[in-house]
Amino acid sequence: MFDHTICAISTALKEGAISIVRLSGEDAIPIVNQIFTKDLSHVPSHTIHYGHILDDHKEPVDEVLVSVFRAPKTYTREDIVEINCHGGIFITRKILSIVLSHGAKLAKPGEFTQRAFYHGRIDLSQAEAVEDMIEATNDSAAKMAIRGIRGSVHQLLQPLIENLLDIIAQIEVNIDYPEYEDIEQLTQQDLLPKVKEWLDRIDAILKKANTGQLIKNGIDTVIIGRPNVGKSSLLNALLEEDKAIVTDIAGTTRDIVEGQIHIGSVQLNLIDTAGIRHASDKIEQIGIEKSQEKLQQAKLVLLVLDGSHPLTKEDEDLLEKTKDKLRLIIWNKQDLSDTSQEGICISAKNHQIQPLIDALESLYQNDLLNEEPVLSNERQIGLLQQARSAMTRAQLALEDHTEPDLVEIDIQEAYEDLKEILGEVHREDLLDTLFSKFCLGK
Amino acid sequence: MFDHTICAISTALKEGAISIVRLSGEDAIPIVNQIFTKDLSHVPSHTIHYGHILDDHKEPVDEVLVSVFRAPKTYTREDIVEINCHGGIFITRKILSIVLSHGAKLAKPGEFTQRAFYHGRIDLSQAEAVEDMIEATNDSAAKMAIRGIRGSVHQLLQPLIENLLDIIAQIEVNIDYPEYEDIEQLTQQDLLPKVKEWLDRIDAILKKANTGQLIKNGIDTVIIGRPNVGKSSLLNALLEEDKAIVTDIAGTTRDIVEGQIHIGSVQLNLIDTAGIRHASDKIEQIGIEKSQEKLQQAKLVLLVLDGSHPLTKEDEDLLEKTKDKLRLIIWNKQDLSDTSQEGICISAKNHQIQPLIDALESLYQNDLLNEEPVLSNERQIGLLQQARSAMTRAQLALEDHTEPDLVEIDIQEAYEDLKEILGEVHREDLLDTLFSKFCLGK
Repeated sequence: MFDHTICAISTALKEGAISIVRLSGEDAIPIVNQIFTKDLSHVPSHTIHYGHILDDHKEPVDEVLVSVFRAPKTYTREDIVEINCHGGIFITRKILSIVLSHGAKLAKPGEFTQRAFYHGRIDLSQAEAVEDMIEATNDSAAKMAIRGIRGSVHQLLQPLIENLLDIIAQIEVNIDYPEYEDIEQLTQQDLLPKVKEWLDRIDAILKKANTGQLIKNGIDTVIIGRPNVGKSSLLNALLEEDKAIVTDIAGTTRDIVEGQIHIGSVQLNLIDTAGIRHASDKIEQIGIEKSQEKLQQAKLVLLVLDGSHPLTKEDEDLLEKTKDKLRLIIWNKQDLSDTSQEGICISAKNHQIQPLIDALESLYQNDLLNEEPVLSNERQIGLLQQARSAMTRAQLALEDHTEPDLVEIDIQEAYEDLKEILGEVHREDLLDTLFSKFCLGK
Repeated sequence: MFDHTICAISTALKEGAISIVRLSGEDAIPIVNQIFTKDLSHVPSHTIHYGHILDDHKEPVDEVLVSVFRAPKTYTREDIVEINCHGGIFITRKILSIVLSHGAKLAKPGEFTQRAFYHGRIDLSQAEAVEDMIEATNDSAAKMAIRGIRGSVHQLLQPLIENLLDIIAQIEVNIDYPEYEDIEQLTQQDLLPKVKEWLDRIDAILKKANTGQLIKNGIDTVIIGRPNVGKSSLLNALLEEDKAIVTDIAGTTRDIVEGQIHIGSVQLNLIDTAGIRHASDKIEQIGIEKSQEKLQQAKLVLLVLDGSHPLTKEDEDLLEKTKDKLRLIIWNKQDLSDTSQEGICISAKNHQIQPLIDALESLYQNDLLNEEPVLSNERQIGLLQQARSAMTRAQLALEDHTEPDLVEIDIQEAYEDLKEILGEVHREDLLDTLFSKFCLGK
């Protein structure tokens, strides 16, 4: 299937101390042998060799360390050679171009991982976890990713797949050998509880997957309230409280996010909003509309009220508007208040927000990651939902007294969906799209 | 001297397929041993080991390859361990933080190379060449850097240093043992030709060093001419002509540079200018003043004239103004011209600029890099010039019939300057500043 040797720069292409140019394929060792000062033909696997890369005039181009990995105990299950060179952009590209001119082909994004998948070293969910690991921006996301790399999705789904296969096999036997009387006849009554139990298990996985996605991407959290209630002070207090772990990872903050904090193992994407009130000013109105929109998309609402004053009509509107959302009601301005309220009472101005931090921690106190594996990948969750739909159709049909052999097609579909999550059935074109979203050099 | 083990992220900190966390020092192997799934205590040097990095709860954090290098055959001459992990920013930092929490200290920029220098693996000029290699933006600069890494500066200077040492020794013998009659008496007449010859050799090196610096940094080239003579068309034509190799390396283009092209082995930093004429408009005047400034700083001038019209007063002013500069006079608009001129005739609009390319190529046809080593580092050149000044003082004194023993101090100074280029004498504080400009992790 892979008749050529691929190569790519596997480190980020920015100035650094070290860069890696990686080759994979049958000719990886012979190609590097032509341009390296040491003969690698017979060196053992997993060894490192000091020398120089040479250009066409046999002039040294760079001082490098070359790592040799022999198939099959490699990332791709092919021979791999890694050239660790000086981390300049020019010199790294130069070495890549020398490797290319000696017969290697430039790898497509994700092609190393794609080969690992095709050669059966990892399943598709593991391949996806590799990319999740690279993109992880918090501890829990990284934890989910490493579990994924180690095959947690496979562990999670394999029993469910086998379950379906059992059901399908029983139906098939009934269809194929109706004359054998010693084969138990499969009835709707037999089948229905199996389907229901399967659906319950899928529902549990999907519920956790929701949390998985939140962990992976962070939780979009709006801070909302009428004007001058202390929203921005609260944002500042939260960000400062958490200063040590406020993320400074470039590129993870989306435009609308004002800051990110980590509460326990989850990341909150804090979104400050314009104060919501009835405004006649046109520009203010636009700001308020934006706030409404953010409110709608948010997964968590921090509704800020003024604890030193009675509720206004606007406060009551906001309480009503957010009542179906996951929300925390926060009584701010405790410093100005004589009485003490029930609930989360803080003074954002004085950075006294511990009650809110506690509430957030208990909200996202997920020991979830200490338990079973969690799905967080959109493609995987999509396929799981698709499988769920198919099995729900099967359930309804059975409840409608349809014969088992007529629901087989739905069960078969659910089975295929689950297999597709692991990449055990797949469409080539979809796979190409999937891997193309990977890092170059991975 | 180095009683602690250092660590750093040695690849560029941007999302990539692979990152490297590097440790150097006595505890490099014991530290990684505590957090890795495989026992590294007795593995041979230059071998690679597959496994997982574990957190404090012995939970796997990432799937990695660990390379072990045992002293003294390593970059720093200390034990080195490199952890190749997934190239995400979060996960790379996480692994660094685990390493730090097990007793390694964060390396300062350049500290790995600094250790290589202190342990005598490389001299200071080689250390500087490492950074030059990382910063190289063209072939010739990379070539100079690899020669530097391989010790070319040492080769170049060592005979000159020995030369001075000989002279100093002869003077000292004369001072210390004036009673021994069998020791030849050193006179000004003996010494003067030696000093002159030495200065000639230094001048030759400094002359080439000038070219070395041009190669390293590129040649600032202004395109100049009166308004509407086709300067911008020429810029576009040059950039397009050269499209395939126009650099797209981020961060190398300075603000005023409009584009970079490579002519043979050198890089031209092309600077377009406002047309120069007598202007009354104030804003135009500012533009013109800027052009004058750029003209002054430029190392090469491309003076564009309109070949389809007679010279104007402004053209003649420009010819006069640039007459002491390295310049090429270019007759543009050949498409509109009936007659054919002598010299470089082009049609920028029609992208017919081959005569200019040819002229540039012959201007910078430097087989220089095929010959002896070239200095290009500012610190090194500065010290060489300092040595030259000292020896010039010695020369003048000798010509003034000063006794040899009285010029010894100047010769001694030149000797120290040359030794300082190689780092054989050095001031700790200056060294710290020098290495602090290096890449983190190198």
